[in-house]
Amino acid sequence: MGKNVYVGVDLGGTTIKVGLCDEFGRLLHTYEGPTGTEHGSDVVLENIAQYTRKLVADSSHEWEQVAGIGAGIAGFMDIPEGFIKLSPNLGWRNVPVKKILEEKLGKTVKIDNDANVAALGEAWSGAGAGIPNVVCYTLGTGVGGGIIINGKIYQGFKGMAGELGHITVVPDLEAVRCGCGMKGCLETVSSATGIIRMGKEAVERGEHTSLALLSDLTAKDVCDAAKSGDEVSLRIVNRAALYLGKSMAAVSVILNPQRFIIGGGVSKAGEFLFTAIRKYYQEFTQESAKEGVDIVAASLGNDAGIVGAAGLNLHS
Amino acid sequence: MGKNVYVGVDLGGTTIKVGLCDEFGRLLHTYEGPTGTEHGSDVVLENIAQYTRKLVADSSHEWEQVAGIGAGIAGFMDIPEGFIKLSPNLGWRNVPVKKILEEKLGKTVKIDNDANVAALGEAWSGAGAGIPNVVCYTLGTGVGGGIIINGKIYQGFKGMAGELGHITVVPDLEAVRCGCGMKGCLETVSSATGIIRMGKEAVERGEHTSLALLSDLTAKDVCDAAKSGDEVSLRIVNRAALYLGKSMAAVSVILNPQRFIIGGGVSKAGEFLFTAIRKYYQEFTQESAKEGVDIVAASLGNDAGIVGAAGLNLHS
Repeated sequence: MGKNVYVGVDLGGTTIKVGLCDEFGRLLHTYEGPTGTEHGSDVVLENIAQYTRKLVADSSHEWEQVAGIGAGIAGFMDIPEGFIKLSPNLGWRNVPVKKILEEKLGKTVKIDNDANVAALGEAWSGAGAGIPNVVCYTLGTGVGGGIIINGKIYQGFKGMAGELGHITVVPDLEAVRCGCGMKGCLETVSSATGIIRMGKEAVERGEHTSLALLSDLTAKDVCDAAKSGDEVSLRIVNRAALYLGKSMAAVSVILNPQRFIIGGGVSKAGEFLFTAIRKYYQEFTQESAKEGVDIVAASLGNDAGIVGAAGLNLHS
Repeated sequence: MGKNVYVGVDLGGTTIKVGLCDEFGRLLHTYEGPTGTEHGSDVVLENIAQYTRKLVADSSHEWEQVAGIGAGIAGFMDIPEGFIKLSPNLGWRNVPVKKILEEKLGKTVKIDNDANVAALGEAWSGAGAGIPNVVCYTLGTGVGGGIIINGKIYQGFKGMAGELGHITVVPDLEAVRCGCGMKGCLETVSSATGIIRMGKEAVERGEHTSLALLSDLTAKDVCDAAKSGDEVSLRIVNRAALYLGKSMAAVSVILNPQRFIIGGGVSKAGEFLFTAIRKYYQEFTQESAKEGVDIVAASLGNDAGIVGAAGLNLHS
């Protein structure tokens, strides 16, 4: 029998992506297919099982080499029990994912939330490889987070650790309500949604900006306009970076991680955004807490989820 | 040979306190003597060694039962190496504490900073006993902090984790400079020093307050006046509680600890202060991150340091 390999499942609302990793987190083979969300959880879980068998069969590995399977899922869950309490984007309530998949596949299955799993992927074999303590931000529709301590996902008391998008950073006078119910959360300014909102508001206020010429504004539009010198867009991207930097200052005096990793769609704005984030981080972080700390871009892209899910059986 | 016991050393600028604990963190015996700071580090370390031998001899235990010795020290240090880089209150620079004490006593010696050690004491056998993930605040001259994850002190990359007094919480317009170099740190409003400062400022502004009648204002004076209904003092104590609550809200979405423990001189203001802290914590913390989380007073008082130091050999 060959070496152990691990299967990671990235369960999205439209597509299920599965990948095979070796024990070093190297992605050996991938496969993907439709989720079938509309057919309900039984079909979705059967799809996961089939795609997983197909993935292994198509690779040069034996089924016996599969030492564990992990899945990253968006939603509220009981992680040790592998039980989804509520997943709004899948329309699931009370689905015992671990139990069902273990029965179907005869392998140990672990689940975790998508932001944690992406963080683990980056920490294991992406931008955090070899660094024991990293904190990851995912700047997408919302702002997700994941905290890796000694190479493992840190869950906290009820799995709520790493909810970095809900650090309150915006002062009361400028704060808007967040989806979580609080005001002034990082997510309201540093997510794609927040950037789009600020862009639309500027246009509505009649500010002089090239964004006024665009319909269906995206966060990329705002970042591109900023790079082209549009002052309003520059102000918006700077604001997103400012509050990210401030939140990292808080994380640094609380956890003192060695590295921050930033991924997600918004992070594709590139060095332009990272330069601003680093500047504000330096400005707002206590001297000793920032010593030797770096801020880098995620390196696995969309594969972070499958790699991290595969790693759940080694690093949790 | 009887059961293992552990020695904890609380090294203060004036007094060295030593204590003997069993494997459950129960304090069996204590001893204390002058530090002898003025005679330099060689004498201080010899005093520690002598007090430790005396402690064990006076107790009903054999020297052979001592399975480890720990010391809590204020200052900057290399914790794994047991090396003090700088301790302003002892006037030390580059003192290899671990190495010297191990030679003198023939036992394993571990050191850590005083706030971390007090946190470990409370987590081990004080207000956090049985709770794996707790965050401790010590409200004294400054605001110290300690983070306990899975029953162990979490140090972070360069030992700067748990510097809770330096979370930026005060909005720019009201922020004053902190000793650490930044502005708006929690320590500027929620430490004894911060409370005294706000009291003096109110008196200087000519506000109507009973504090004006006192010389040599202490944080206890302000808390007592607040309890007696002095409105200015009430506002000051509320402000200290407000920003503590806000900092805990940030800690909760980052780490999601199960329990917050608050100790130090200011915490002796009692239920009056805790009621305010809990109110603000509830107000500013995201729903899921505060679920089931409690905020309690430290229970070991001045013994937290020696108990936690004794625990360094079991919990680090």
